Amino acid sequence: MAVISMLSDFGHLYPAQMKAVILRINPSAVLVDISHHIPAQGIKAGAFALMVSAPYFPEGTVHLAVVDPGVGTSRRPIVVESGAHLFVGPDNGLLIPAAFKLSQDFKVWEITNPELFLILSSTFHGRDIFAPVAARLSLGMAASDVGNEIADFVELDLGTLQVIDGKVRGQVVYVDSFGNVITNIPGEFVIKRFKFGDMLDICGTTMPFVHTYISVKEGAPLALVGSHGYLEISVNLGNAVELLELDIGDIFDLIPFNSGPFVK
Amino acid sequence: MAVISMLSDFGHLYPAQMKAVILRINPSAVLVDISHHIPAQGIKAGAFALMVSAPYFPEGTVHLAVVDPGVGTSRRPIVVESGAHLFVGPDNGLLIPAAFKLSQDFKVWEITNPELFLILSSTFHGRDIFAPVAARLSLGMAASDVGNEIADFVELDLGTLQVIDGKVRGQVVYVDSFGNVITNIPGEFVIKRFKFGDMLDICGTTMPFVHTYISVKEGAPLALVGSHGYLEISVNLGNAVELLELDIGDIFDLIPFNSGPFVK
Amino acid sequence: MAVISMLSDFGHLYPAQMKAVILRINPSAVLVDISHHIPAQGIKAGAFALMVSAPYFPEGTVHLAVVDPGVGTSRRPIVVESGAHLFVGPDNGLLIPAAFKLSQDFKVWEITNPELFLILSSTFHGRDIFAPVAARLSLGMAASDVGNEIADFVELDLGTLQVIDGKVRGQVVYVDSFGNVITNIPGEFVIKRFKFGDMLDICGTTMPFVHTYISVKEGAPLALVGSHGYLEISVNLGNAVELLELDIGDIFDLIPFNSGPFVK
Repeated sequence: MAVISMLSDFGHLYPAQMKAVILRINPSAVLVDISHHIPAQGIKAGAFALMVSAPYFPEGTVHLAVVDPGVGTSRRPIVVESGAHLFVGPDNGLLIPAAFKLSQDFKVWEITNPELFLILSSTFHGRDIFAPVAARLSLGMAASDVGNEIADFVELDLGTLQVIDGKVRGQVVYVDSFGNVITNIPGEFVIKRFKFGDMLDICGTTMPFVHTYISVKEGAPLALVGSHGYLEISVNLGNAVELLELDIGDIFDLIPFNSGPFVK
Repeated sequence: MAVISMLSDFGHLYPAQMKAVILRINPSAVLVDISHHIPAQGIKAGAFALMVSAPYFPEGTVHLAVVDPGVGTSRRPIVVESGAHLFVGPDNGLLIPAAFKLSQDFKVWEITNPELFLILSSTFHGRDIFAPVAARLSLGMAASDVGNEIADFVELDLGTLQVIDGKVRGQVVYVDSFGNVITNIPGEFVIKRFKFGDMLDICGTTMPFVHTYISVKEGAPLALVGSHGYLEISVNLGNAVELLELDIGDIFDLIPFNSGPFVK
Repeated sequence: MAVISMLSDFGHLYPAQMKAVILRINPSAVLVDISHHIPAQGIKAGAFALMVSAPYFPEGTVHLAVVDPGVGTSRRPIVVESGAHLFVGPDNGLLIPAAFKLSQDFKVWEITNPELFLILSSTFHGRDIFAPVAARLSLGMAASDVGNEIADFVELDLGTLQVIDGKVRGQVVYVDSFGNVITNIPGEFVIKRFKFGDMLDICGTTMPFVHTYISVKEGAPLALVGSHGYLEISVNLGNAVELLELDIGDIFDLIPFNSGPFVK
């Protein structure tokens, strides 16, 4: 049985049409939603969600991801093969961070084989192109059967990390349903640069760099390396998005605060 | 393996009880949610969502749909057979547009066979009647085994299209999570009446009739035939519900605007 | 095929990582979401949702439930066996009402066998401990293989029912997406104490105790025994949460109102 993961900004209703199309072609596909509630047209947030989720899936998984503000333009539909995973979606960068995370040695094909399409609408390629291609890949079709390999696919920068005068400039790439602020600053970078217990200043709020949420008292802010491997700003049993007024796409500076290490 | 689609206004929590009941009876049923976030008691919105989704499912699918403000009254539970699809739900019109879309030659049975019920609550027929009936249908039980065929089932009018003095009077039947306004005006009607590029006035806002969202510049309104086959009012990378202040059930006039065709 | 139910306060995104981990270990597991939208850190609401859902699942179901404000502390991960059901989650009371509902004779084990864990993050035990344990239990691993049986697990009180001077003091344990207020007052208690048609006063609003929502006219408040078996306060085709301004955790008094029985 082949697993097909699904990610989109479609909310309710539209994903079912993609699932129905897949099950017509591969009735034994196992469908797993990553999320259909990526912010509308949020390519970066979608790319982040796919990147942190895909590596946990079994080898052979087909990841069908559609955040597609350019549907109807000439942006290309693509298939990406990386490690033993396949990705299907628009050529707008959405798939690239996940593919790169699995293997830096990935390949990209443009989907051009018209035999793979349903009768085509100009507005819902998720149902009419990506779903049938994902279903056929889950049945064992080779990625090379969709069309020609391409090298000029669209890259995606999840925000370059900058260090300026000792300040680390980062970007918010996701906010989760607990109100945690998830950044593009890799955990390895933070762990090398700071010690647990160091105080940090972010947006004028001072907080310790700690191991886990409960390292601070209830209602207090903190920074940690989240389960996704990136620096996360949180409030123990509270909401960091509201406290710091940060949202997806916002740039912020992380400033070491010189008051010695934090002790609870 | 039989597919059972599910649609309701139950939100979170209650659908799992229906799924659990189904899996007790048919452990190999493949369950696909269309949506459990139909607006509460929104029979028309539910009927529209079911109508545009059902045709994509494989033959043999059982569609279990519950938007049921009359639960506990004498409204009847029914099974509908249309094309090679089966529908289970309340006799309040919810199932009829979808059944009619698949085949104008559909049949309706009242569910009266008490052997098919769980111990009955007066408030949750989704779990106690519709789920066990759907599970048994997915195992091959004939629709005629649920009770007698009926002809006086409740019809549903998704809003009759009217043309008055050259104005096309339509109704909003759904709003999606992008803020697109979906109407009851069929695509074929619009395509026959207007040319791509024609300007239309809706609620005092002028917009072109186009092929796809990106036919206009970012933030501009547009009208197109959506992936569901009906006229949709949208804002490219924006929110038409907020711009036009339209909601499900609202009536509006679509007025041809005499300024010649639209060129981007 | 083994069923694994899932419940959490994770919202979108994180549940997919748990599902991916489960499918790597047991590719034929059937995954059913109860809800991932329990209010953040809402142990009582989660315990209630699990309690009313679990009994409908087939024997042999593994219930994976994570509402876990204490992740990262020394709170223990546990497995509970009750009836023919298994539960996996944190030792904070979340699993206990559901287990007790299935059988008062349940057993609890602490998960200590490190061979069952993924490489461990300090913030996401749902993915790193509970998911792999649930997957192995669904493959037939005995509960006793996870570690030692314990007797000092954390109990959970869903709010003790009190009767004071003829007033019944209850607590709100859940609000559903219709705006129904669900209480901790068992249906059997209410049915013994009141007759259908009796008038009740709750938060200054007078309403009848009835069989079903449509026993009152549209927009009128009512009290009934909900499909979950507990007293529920509702407004026919309306929203009781807004009318009574009650939320999860609120305490209220239910006062018999001396005006004779209600007749519609």
